[in-house]
Amino acid sequence: MATEHGTQQDGANDSAPRATDPAMRWDGWGDPARAETLPFAVRALLPLLLGRLRKPSARPELTDVRPASSGLAGEDADAFAALLGRSHVRTDAESRIRHAGGRSTPDLLRRREASQAVPDAVLRPGGHEEVVACLRLASDLDLAVIPFGGGTSVVGALDPERGAHRGVVSLDLTRMSELLEYDAVSAEALFAAGTTGPEAERLLAAHGSELGHFPQSFRYATLGGFAAARSSGQNSAGYGRFETMVTGLRVATPTGDLVLGRSPASAAGPDLIRLFLGSEGIFGVITEVRVRVHPLPAERIRESWSFTDFGAGVDALRQVAQHGGGPTVLRLSDEAETGVSLAQIGKVGKALAKGASAITVYEGDHDDVVARRARTAGILQAAGGTSLGQEAAEDWQRTRFDGPYLRDALLDAGVFCETLETATTWSRLAALREAVTSALTRGFGEVGRKAFVMCHVSHTYPTGASLYFTVLAPLGADPLDAWAGVKRRVGDAIMAAGGTISHHHAVGRDHAPWLAEEIGTTGIRVLAAIKRELDPQAIMNPGAILGAATPVPRTGGA
Amino acid sequence: MATEHGTQQDGANDSAPRATDPAMRWDGWGDPARAETLPFAVRALLPLLLGRLRKPSARPELTDVRPASSGLAGEDADAFAALLGRSHVRTDAESRIRHAGGRSTPDLLRRREASQAVPDAVLRPGGHEEVVACLRLASDLDLAVIPFGGGTSVVGALDPERGAHRGVVSLDLTRMSELLEYDAVSAEALFAAGTTGPEAERLLAAHGSELGHFPQSFRYATLGGFAAARSSGQNSAGYGRFETMVTGLRVATPTGDLVLGRSPASAAGPDLIRLFLGSEGIFGVITEVRVRVHPLPAERIRESWSFTDFGAGVDALRQVAQHGGGPTVLRLSDEAETGVSLAQIGKVGKALAKGASAITVYEGDHDDVVARRARTAGILQAAGGTSLGQEAAEDWQRTRFDGPYLRDALLDAGVFCETLETATTWSRLAALREAVTSALTRGFGEVGRKAFVMCHVSHTYPTGASLYFTVLAPLGADPLDAWAGVKRRVGDAIMAAGGTISHHHAVGRDHAPWLAEEIGTTGIRVLAAIKRELDPQAIMNPGAILGAATPVPRTGGA
Repeated sequence: MATEHGTQQDGANDSAPRATDPAMRWDGWGDPARAETLPFAVRALLPLLLGRLRKPSARPELTDVRPASSGLAGEDADAFAALLGRSHVRTDAESRIRHAGGRSTPDLLRRREASQAVPDAVLRPGGHEEVVACLRLASDLDLAVIPFGGGTSVVGALDPERGAHRGVVSLDLTRMSELLEYDAVSAEALFAAGTTGPEAERLLAAHGSELGHFPQSFRYATLGGFAAARSSGQNSAGYGRFETMVTGLRVATPTGDLVLGRSPASAAGPDLIRLFLGSEGIFGVITEVRVRVHPLPAERIRESWSFTDFGAGVDALRQVAQHGGGPTVLRLSDEAETGVSLAQIGKVGKALAKGASAITVYEGDHDDVVARRARTAGILQAAGGTSLGQEAAEDWQRTRFDGPYLRDALLDAGVFCETLETATTWSRLAALREAVTSALTRGFGEVGRKAFVMCHVSHTYPTGASLYFTVLAPLGADPLDAWAGVKRRVGDAIMAAGGTISHHHAVGRDHAPWLAEEIGTTGIRVLAAIKRELDPQAIMNPGAILGAATPVPRTGGA
Repeated sequence: MATEHGTQQDGANDSAPRATDPAMRWDGWGDPARAETLPFAVRALLPLLLGRLRKPSARPELTDVRPASSGLAGEDADAFAALLGRSHVRTDAESRIRHAGGRSTPDLLRRREASQAVPDAVLRPGGHEEVVACLRLASDLDLAVIPFGGGTSVVGALDPERGAHRGVVSLDLTRMSELLEYDAVSAEALFAAGTTGPEAERLLAAHGSELGHFPQSFRYATLGGFAAARSSGQNSAGYGRFETMVTGLRVATPTGDLVLGRSPASAAGPDLIRLFLGSEGIFGVITEVRVRVHPLPAERIRESWSFTDFGAGVDALRQVAQHGGGPTVLRLSDEAETGVSLAQIGKVGKALAKGASAITVYEGDHDDVVARRARTAGILQAAGGTSLGQEAAEDWQRTRFDGPYLRDALLDAGVFCETLETATTWSRLAALREAVTSALTRGFGEVGRKAFVMCHVSHTYPTGASLYFTVLAPLGADPLDAWAGVKRRVGDAIMAAGGTISHHHAVGRDHAPWLAEEIGTTGIRVLAAIKRELDPQAIMNPGAILGAATPVPRTGGA
């Protein structure tokens, strides 16, 4: 294990100021300058795993793309310009294409098409009152509104769907980036919802504190987006899911505002904060997010572990999660992911590459991290784990936001690569993993493609854990159609095995077909009733979460 | 400090089998055989604190009470009897009087009146399907339904209000007492909602596990009631509020059922479990509750502490809560409560009786409790605390469910005694305490009575804490009117100081006037829309949470 004092450097790496963050590549992930080529070992491995691969045709340039023509009239844009200023109402092709969707693999494949569905305009409000004014005007003009933060949705939550309306606008919240209040005594901070992860951490670091929410989307996603999607970050074992960090919200809806959260806990009726966490813009727009913060960790220990197989590792993680007071980060890769991760960093064949590898990170003050590490190591060892020291854990830490870069390189090499995730109780976890793996391999098999499936556990609870899958397959000529079929099969398998349709990616439009099975038709009626009350014209993110009005049939249907 | 191995005895004390639990006294708290007389020191203290006291007239016997006549026709009762069996449909005076309300001080004062509002019948369904059938029949017969668990509400949630309906029935869920599923691997248990605290612990102890939820109502309240009211127990610092223990719910509503909770965490839209936690029966009836459990603690350390004053103690507790990994129980009494508690057990004037006393309890395995105690003691000491050893903490542990017995004795001695609670952030806590204390003393002052106010912190969070007040005043001739005026003033003061109208007692009817200020009119509209969808005839607990349809004016109004 490695003990590291004064983690400023590391923190600085995570929280580079927003101002210097390059805009996300329009047709892929992240900083265009960082686009990766595939490591040699991975290139060598791919044909062995997937068979023959065909390189796809070259991607179009941004200027080659023909966005659907704008349904917005000049006077519509003028009316928004009167509210926001001309420069914050964008109707140019590039702005609209850049707000055409999120960053799922289907999103990226659609970005490679010549003709694309895009919003009619992009609005950039500067604060809560401007959001309210935009919603009012959009209602008056009969326009749908898609709230847009970092643009990192992987579940179709940002599709420019107009529903029954005349047009659709993207409401880009990233101008609303500010630490509005900081309460050192109560360890609370109030942020404007468009503040990105790195910017929030930069602003908090100036006060010596940290939020500690690091999902893979961290470098681009916003606090409002984390809230709207019920995000969970890599440090969830220590700091909890994003929803447990939120102590208050301000929300603008088409028919009224809400300011929620007067106290750390309450019994004043149902917790309405939880109703807007996970609402993905269908009720309104989260404009401010109050979060609890903690001191920047004084010390950090990283240690990786090896288990003979994934099942043994899961059992060990379960014991750690049920004991409590364990690591800040706790994750376990299955045998396939362990092998490929090592290939990626050029370490195939190392003595300890076999089996399933786990990462533990402990953050806090000295006595605390030492005690938590000792306790956790004792449990992992007793459960058959072997400590591998710090190296693999440090590799993981260094590259933990980089997965999506690799996906772009795989797509260019003719490899379809997508991720999906679920969660269930410990007792159902093995069967759920088997069901999803089987649905993925059989689904691709049906269209004549070999699939390679990797899985890891990255979020643990006393009663269960999440499963995160990465699947690779030959891209083929019709990757969108092929994936739609596989995804349908996987969703059905998750439901049948007692999993949730999403542990932290949210519902968007892609998971809407399974929501009725997850929460029942009565649950759907509850959400629809709330939407009718707050958004009677149904302008807010039409089609997200609730999908079409009529239940979508399962596999074998539509 | 005292280390205690093998806490079976102690656990057994908390979890005496339901079968041997005597029925609650009809006009006071708990076991009639345990009714207390006031300790000598308290009797001596009261006139000094409150001035001259007049003993109230003798309480009526149960047989003296004239319940309002039943609005139910014989054929109505027959119809319910056809569903539940004749013996589970009660229309006798005693059954109806026993379901006339909860256990707030106003409830107890109303039990002393000759004429009482009571439900028209008491229904005792035996399971989920019988609850569904009762709701359907109540809709058909135009009857309001008040779900009833342990009957321990202190906020008027059980008032037999019929709303616009022909009559009102109490739906007593205590026959539904059962451990339905136990999953040792996932550390989860599914209970029928009418299972009481002690019975749940007895059933779990057979599996070597514990729920660990110990509110003062523990010995009578049910798991469904804990869920419906967003309860918080004395061990909340270690095991969390009840809502954090719940991993699933089954709910019967007049228009459909819900089964919620497929996984320990989810991003499948808003968390609907949280919508029913705190819903207090206005949407439907919680019939099953799934909870996470933990191993029966192998070891327990108890230690009490003294601080020069309450403010110093609060600051110390804040540091413990923000550090994390601290005690299972963490509470702090102010100077007044510290003094009176000592008087109660005959220890006035002890050397260390001055200042504010705190209780800490650590539960878990040996290494863990020792480490948590050491860490916490270090923080408390550095913050000015002095360890008093185990004795006071053990006194507290022994008497921790007995407060309500003392209240009965006080009422008989002519002393009005009531509790109320709130919570806010650490930075607002002192001002909130001052505002509530002042509202209580001025409110009673206005009606010419001297009040004595005590306060403690019993639930702490990284961002804030709860405040629990006990007020004593001469009973006077019109205690219900006097209290209504004081309570109005206190509610307004809580709102003005940024507190929540309830941290763990819930809303019921008593706190409904402040809910619009707590969650805004848009929040009220959301709750009303859900109620319209699930309970279109508004038969479920009319008047609870949402109160009257029109906003209730604050002090100075109605």
